[in-house]
Amino acid sequence: MAPPPLHPDAVPLEFLLGTWRGEGQGHYPTIASFGYGEEVRFWHVGKPFLAYTQRSWALDDGRPLHSEAGYWRPKPDGVVELVLALPTGHVEIDEGTIEGTAMTLASRLVGASTSAKEVASVTRQVVVEGDVLRYVFAMAAVGEPLQEHLTAELHRQP
Amino acid sequence: MAPPPLHPDAVPLEFLLGTWRGEGQGHYPTIASFGYGEEVRFWHVGKPFLAYTQRSWALDDGRPLHSEAGYWRPKPDGVVELVLALPTGHVEIDEGTIEGTAMTLASRLVGASTSAKEVASVTRQVVVEGDVLRYVFAMAAVGEPLQEHLTAELHRQP
Repeated sequence: MAPPPLHPDAVPLEFLLGTWRGEGQGHYPTIASFGYGEEVRFWHVGKPFLAYTQRSWALDDGRPLHSEAGYWRPKPDGVVELVLALPTGHVEIDEGTIEGTAMTLASRLVGASTSAKEVASVTRQVVVEGDVLRYVFAMAAVGEPLQEHLTAELHRQP
Repeated sequence: MAPPPLHPDAVPLEFLLGTWRGEGQGHYPTIASFGYGEEVRFWHVGKPFLAYTQRSWALDDGRPLHSEAGYWRPKPDGVVELVLALPTGHVEIDEGTIEGTAMTLASRLVGASTSAKEVASVTRQVVVEGDVLRYVFAMAAVGEPLQEHLTAELHRQP
Protein backbone atom coordinates (compact mmCIF):
# COMPACT_ATOMS: atom_id res chain seq x y z
CA MET A 1 0.00 0.00 0.00
CA ALA A 2 1.41 3.42 -0.95
CA PRO A 3 2.12 5.67 2.03
CA PRO A 4 -0.54 8.34 2.50
CA PRO A 5 0.34 12.00 1.92
CA LEU A 6 1.47 13.95 4.94
CA HIS A 7 -1.49 15.63 6.67
CA PRO A 8 -1.33 19.42 6.10
CA ASP A 9 -1.37 20.04 9.87
CA ALA A 10 1.74 17.84 10.25
CA VAL A 11 3.84 19.77 7.72
CA PRO A 12 5.52 21.91 10.44
CA LEU A 13 7.09 18.66 11.75
CA GLU A 14 8.08 17.24 8.36
CA PHE A 15 11.74 18.00 9.14
CA LEU A 16 11.67 15.25 11.79
CA LEU A 17 10.53 12.39 9.54
CA GLY A 18 12.82 9.41 9.20
CA THR A 19 15.15 7.25 11.26
CA TRP A 20 18.01 8.88 13.16
CA ARG A 21 21.01 7.18 14.76
CA GLY A 22 23.92 8.43 16.79
CA GLU A 23 25.36 8.72 20.27
CA GLY A 24 24.57 10.60 23.44
CA GLN A 25 25.88 11.37 26.90
CA GLY A 26 23.99 11.08 30.17
CA HIS A 27 24.77 12.59 33.54
CA TYR A 28 22.91 13.35 36.75
CA PRO A 29 24.01 13.97 40.35
CA THR A 30 22.63 10.64 41.53
CA ILE A 31 24.25 8.36 38.92
CA ALA A 32 27.56 7.69 37.15
CA SER A 33 27.88 9.46 33.79
CA PHE A 34 27.45 7.24 30.73
CA GLY A 35 27.49 7.22 26.95
CA TYR A 36 24.86 5.55 24.82
CA GLY A 37 23.94 4.64 21.28
CA GLU A 38 20.50 5.69 20.14
CA GLU A 39 17.94 5.26 17.39
CA VAL A 40 14.95 7.56 17.00
CA ARG A 41 12.11 7.12 14.49
CA PHE A 42 9.46 9.63 13.43
CA TRP A 43 6.75 8.52 10.97
CA HIS A 44 3.19 9.36 9.99
CA VAL A 45 0.02 7.62 8.83
CA GLY A 46 -1.64 10.58 7.07
CA LYS A 47 -3.10 11.97 10.30
CA PRO A 48 -2.25 15.29 11.98
CA PHE A 49 0.53 13.94 14.20
CA LEU A 50 3.85 12.11 14.00
CA ALA A 51 4.38 8.79 15.75
CA TYR A 52 7.68 8.50 17.62
CA THR A 53 9.79 5.76 19.16
CA GLN A 54 13.22 5.89 20.72
CA ARG A 55 15.59 3.23 21.99
CA SER A 56 19.10 3.49 23.36
CA TRP A 57 21.78 0.95 24.18
CA ALA A 58 25.06 0.66 26.05
CA LEU A 59 28.10 1.39 23.92
CA ASP A 60 30.11 -1.48 25.40
CA ASP A 61 27.85 -4.50 24.93
CA GLY A 62 24.77 -3.18 23.13
CA ARG A 63 22.40 -4.08 25.98
CA PRO A 64 19.16 -2.07 25.81
CA LEU A 65 19.02 1.00 28.07
CA HIS A 66 16.11 3.40 27.71
CA SER A 67 13.11 3.44 25.39
CA GLU A 68 10.05 5.60 24.96
CA ALA A 69 7.10 5.91 22.58
CA GLY A 70 4.55 8.59 21.85
CA TYR A 71 3.08 11.13 19.49
CA TRP A 72 3.94 14.68 18.43
CA ARG A 73 0.91 16.89 17.74
CA PRO A 74 1.54 20.18 15.90
CA LYS A 75 -1.09 22.83 16.59
CA PRO A 76 -1.76 26.31 15.15
CA ASP A 77 0.59 29.23 15.80
CA GLY A 78 3.72 27.06 16.09
CA VAL A 79 2.52 25.14 19.13
CA VAL A 80 3.51 21.49 19.58
CA GLU A 81 2.23 18.91 22.05
CA LEU A 82 4.05 15.67 22.90
CA VAL A 83 2.42 12.72 24.68
CA LEU A 84 4.83 10.06 25.80
CA ALA A 85 4.98 6.73 27.66
CA LEU A 86 8.18 5.44 29.28
CA PRO A 87 8.83 1.93 30.59
CA THR A 88 10.14 3.49 33.81
CA GLY A 89 6.45 3.86 34.72
CA HIS A 90 6.13 7.46 33.62
CA VAL A 91 3.98 9.39 31.19
CA GLU A 92 4.67 12.91 29.98
CA ILE A 93 2.65 15.65 28.36
CA ASP A 94 5.13 18.23 27.09
CA GLU A 95 4.10 21.41 25.32
CA GLY A 96 6.05 24.13 23.57
CA THR A 97 6.83 25.76 20.26
CA ILE A 98 8.22 24.97 16.83
CA GLU A 99 10.49 27.61 15.32
CA GLY A 100 11.72 26.56 11.91
CA THR A 101 13.44 23.23 12.56
CA ALA A 102 13.83 23.68 16.32
CA MET A 103 11.46 22.80 19.16
CA THR A 104 11.47 23.76 22.82
CA LEU A 105 9.07 21.94 25.14
CA ALA A 106 8.42 21.79 28.87
CA SER A 107 6.34 19.29 30.77
CA ARG A 108 2.75 20.18 31.50
CA LEU A 109 2.36 16.85 33.29
CA VAL A 110 4.70 14.07 34.42
CA GLY A 111 2.74 11.13 35.79
CA ALA A 112 4.29 8.24 37.71
CA SER A 113 2.85 4.81 38.35
CA THR A 114 2.72 3.58 41.95
CA SER A 115 6.09 1.84 41.75
CA ALA A 116 7.93 4.51 39.70
CA LYS A 117 10.48 7.05 40.93
CA GLU A 118 9.44 10.66 41.42
CA VAL A 119 10.00 12.91 38.39
CA ALA A 120 8.89 16.52 38.97
CA SER A 121 9.39 18.09 35.54
CA VAL A 122 11.33 17.84 32.28
CA THR A 123 12.28 20.02 29.31
CA ARG A 124 13.16 18.91 25.80
CA GLN A 125 15.01 20.94 23.17
CA VAL A 126 15.41 19.52 19.67
CA VAL A 127 17.29 21.22 16.84
CA VAL A 128 17.60 19.80 13.33
CA GLU A 129 20.14 21.14 10.86
CA GLY A 130 19.86 19.27 7.60
CA ASP A 131 20.44 15.62 8.45
CA VAL A 132 21.75 16.24 11.98
CA LEU A 133 19.44 16.20 15.01
CA ARG A 134 20.70 17.41 18.37
CA TYR A 135 18.67 17.37 21.56
CA VAL A 136 19.02 18.32 25.19
CA PHE A 137 16.81 16.66 27.79
CA ALA A 138 16.67 18.23 31.27
CA MET A 139 14.93 16.71 34.29
CA ALA A 140 14.03 17.54 37.87
CA ALA A 141 13.77 14.20 39.66
CA VAL A 142 14.38 12.37 42.97
CA GLY A 143 14.68 15.72 44.77
CA GLU A 144 17.22 17.28 42.38
CA PRO A 145 16.47 20.60 40.64
CA LEU A 146 15.85 20.83 36.87
CA GLN A 147 19.16 20.22 35.08
CA GLU A 148 20.62 18.73 31.95
CA HIS A 149 20.45 14.92 31.94
CA LEU A 150 20.90 13.80 28.31
CA THR A 151 22.45 15.30 25.17
CA ALA A 152 22.85 13.55 21.84
CA GLU A 153 23.72 14.07 18.21
CA LEU A 154 21.91 11.85 15.72
CA HIS A 155 22.19 11.52 11.95
CA ARG A 156 19.33 10.89 9.57
CA GLN A 157 19.67 7.44 8.03
CA PRO A 158 19.50 7.11 4.25
CA MET B 1 21.33 -10.86 17.34
CA ALA B 2 19.50 -13.58 19.24
CA PRO B 3 16.54 -12.31 21.27
CA PRO B 4 17.31 -12.02 24.98
CA PRO B 5 15.58 -14.34 27.46
CA LEU B 6 12.40 -13.05 29.02
CA HIS B 7 13.11 -11.18 32.27
CA PRO B 8 11.86 -13.28 35.23
CA ASP B 9 9.67 -10.37 36.42
CA ALA B 10 7.93 -10.33 33.02
CA VAL B 11 6.94 -14.01 33.08
CA PRO B 12 3.42 -13.26 34.44
CA LEU B 13 2.74 -11.43 31.15
CA GLU B 14 4.31 -14.02 28.84
CA PHE B 15 0.83 -15.07 27.69
CA LEU B 16 0.51 -11.71 25.88
CA LEU B 17 3.64 -11.97 23.72
CA GLY B 18 3.19 -11.90 19.97
CA THR B 19 1.14 -10.19 17.31
CA TRP B 20 -2.65 -10.33 17.48
CA ARG B 21 -5.15 -9.43 14.77
CA GLY B 22 -8.91 -9.34 14.61
CA GLU B 23 -11.95 -7.12 14.69
CA GLY B 24 -13.72 -4.95 17.23
CA GLN B 25 -16.84 -2.89 17.78
CA GLY B 26 -17.02 0.64 19.11
CA HIS B 27 -19.96 2.54 20.54
CA TYR B 28 -20.53 5.60 22.69
CA PRO B 29 -23.51 7.92 23.25
CA THR B 30 -21.83 10.79 21.42
CA ILE B 31 -20.82 8.95 18.21
CA ALA B 32 -22.16 6.50 15.61
CA SER B 33 -21.29 2.86 16.34
CA PHE B 34 -18.52 1.40 14.20
CA GLY B 35 -16.55 -1.76 13.50
CA TYR B 36 -12.79 -1.84 13.13
CA GLY B 37 -9.88 -4.06 12.23
CA GLU B 38 -7.05 -4.15 14.74
CA GLU B 39 -3.48 -5.31 15.23
CA VAL B 40 -1.85 -5.47 18.67
CA ARG B 41 1.79 -6.31 19.36
CA PHE B 42 3.44 -7.23 22.67
CA TRP B 43 7.21 -7.78 22.75
CA HIS B 44 10.12 -7.62 25.17
CA VAL B 45 13.79 -6.66 25.19
CA GLY B 46 14.88 -8.71 28.22
CA LYS B 47 13.78 -6.07 30.71
CA PRO B 48 11.00 -6.35 33.32
CA PHE B 49 8.22 -4.99 31.11
CA LEU B 50 6.48 -5.65 27.80
CA ALA B 51 6.39 -3.05 25.06
CA TYR B 52 3.01 -2.61 23.39
CA THR B 53 1.60 -0.99 20.26
CA GLN B 54 -1.87 -1.04 18.84
CA ARG B 55 -3.38 0.22 15.58
CA SER B 56 -6.86 -0.05 14.19
CA TRP B 57 -8.38 0.66 10.81
CA ALA B 58 -11.75 1.12 9.16
CA LEU B 59 -13.25 -2.09 7.78
CA ASP B 60 -14.50 -0.42 4.60
CA ASP B 61 -11.40 1.26 3.20
CA GLY B 62 -8.59 0.39 5.61
CA ARG B 63 -7.92 4.00 6.62
CA PRO B 64 -6.13 4.24 9.96
CA LEU B 65 -8.35 4.91 12.98
CA HIS B 66 -6.83 4.73 16.44
CA SER B 67 -3.36 3.91 17.65
CA GLU B 68 -1.60 3.80 21.00
CA ALA B 69 1.79 2.81 22.40
CA GLY B 70 3.13 2.05 25.84
CA TYR B 71 4.53 -0.41 28.34
CA TRP B 72 3.11 -3.07 30.66
CA ARG B 73 4.95 -3.42 33.97
CA PRO B 74 4.21 -6.52 36.05
CA LYS B 75 4.87 -6.05 39.77
CA PRO B 76 4.85 -8.43 42.76
CA ASP B 77 1.62 -9.97 44.04
CA GLY B 78 -0.10 -10.03 40.65
CA VAL B 79 -0.07 -6.26 40.22
CA VAL B 80 0.29 -4.75 36.74
CA GLU B 81 0.92 -1.15 35.69
CA LEU B 82 0.29 0.19 32.18
CA VAL B 83 1.70 3.50 30.92
CA LEU B 84 0.27 4.62 27.61
CA ALA B 85 0.42 7.48 25.09
CA LEU B 86 -2.37 8.15 22.60
CA PRO B 87 -2.27 10.45 19.55
CA THR B 88 -5.55 11.99 20.71
CA GLY B 89 -3.34 13.97 23.13
CA HIS B 90 -3.88 11.69 26.10
CA VAL B 91 -1.68 9.69 28.43
CA GLU B 92 -2.89 6.97 30.78
CA ILE B 93 -1.52 5.26 33.84
CA ASP B 94 -3.70 2.22 34.47
CA GLU B 95 -3.16 -0.18 37.34
CA GLY B 96 -4.74 -3.47 38.27
CA THR B 97 -4.21 -7.17 38.64
CA ILE B 98 -3.15 -10.23 36.68
CA GLU B 99 -5.08 -13.42 37.42
CA GLY B 100 -3.81 -16.28 35.28
CA THR B 101 -4.22 -15.02 31.73
CA ALA B 102 -6.66 -12.22 32.54
CA MET B 103 -6.04 -8.62 33.55
CA THR B 104 -8.34 -5.97 34.99
CA LEU B 105 -7.05 -2.39 35.14
CA ALA B 106 -8.48 1.01 35.99
CA SER B 107 -6.95 4.40 35.34
CA ARG B 108 -4.96 5.99 38.11
CA LEU B 109 -4.36 8.99 35.86
CA VAL B 110 -5.68 10.16 32.51
CA GLY B 111 -3.82 13.25 31.34
CA ALA B 112 -4.93 15.47 28.45
CA SER B 113 -2.88 17.95 26.45
CA THR B 114 -4.23 21.50 26.13
CA SER B 115 -6.04 20.79 22.86
CA ALA B 116 -7.35 17.30 23.75
CA LYS B 117 -10.88 16.31 24.73
CA GLU B 118 -11.71 15.62 28.36
CA VAL B 119 -11.39 11.96 29.43
CA ALA B 120 -12.19 11.38 33.10
CA SER B 121 -11.35 7.69 33.56
CA VAL B 122 -11.00 4.37 31.77
CA THR B 123 -10.99 0.66 32.56
CA ARG B 124 -9.38 -2.15 30.57
CA GLN B 125 -10.17 -5.85 30.82
CA VAL B 126 -8.08 -8.32 28.83
CA VAL B 127 -8.66 -12.08 28.75
CA VAL B 128 -6.50 -14.53 26.82
CA GLU B 129 -7.66 -18.08 26.17
CA GLY B 130 -5.00 -19.91 24.17
CA ASP B 131 -4.53 -17.91 20.99
CA VAL B 132 -7.62 -15.74 21.42
CA LEU B 133 -7.45 -12.35 23.14
CA ARG B 134 -10.62 -10.51 24.06
CA TYR B 135 -10.76 -7.08 25.64
CA VAL B 136 -13.31 -4.58 26.88
CA PHE B 137 -12.37 -0.93 27.12
CA ALA B 138 -14.69 1.38 29.09
CA MET B 139 -14.39 5.15 29.27
CA ALA B 140 -15.90 8.15 31.05
CA ALA B 141 -15.40 11.11 28.71
CA VAL B 142 -16.94 14.36 27.47
CA GLY B 143 -19.37 14.38 30.39
CA GLU B 144 -20.62 10.80 29.94
CA PRO B 145 -20.37 8.27 32.79
CA LEU B 146 -18.02 5.28 32.65
CA GLN B 147 -19.35 2.80 30.10
CA GLU B 148 -18.25 0.25 27.54
CA HIS B 149 -16.68 1.88 24.47
CA LEU B 150 -14.70 -0.85 22.67
CA THR B 151 -14.79 -4.65 22.56
CA ALA B 152 -12.67 -6.85 20.30
CA GLU B 153 -11.61 -10.42 19.66
CA LEU B 154 -8.08 -10.89 18.34
CA HIS B 155 -6.18 -14.00 17.25
CA ARG B 156 -2.51 -14.64 17.83
CA GLN B 157 -0.66 -14.62 14.52
CA PRO B 158 1.58 -17.56 13.73
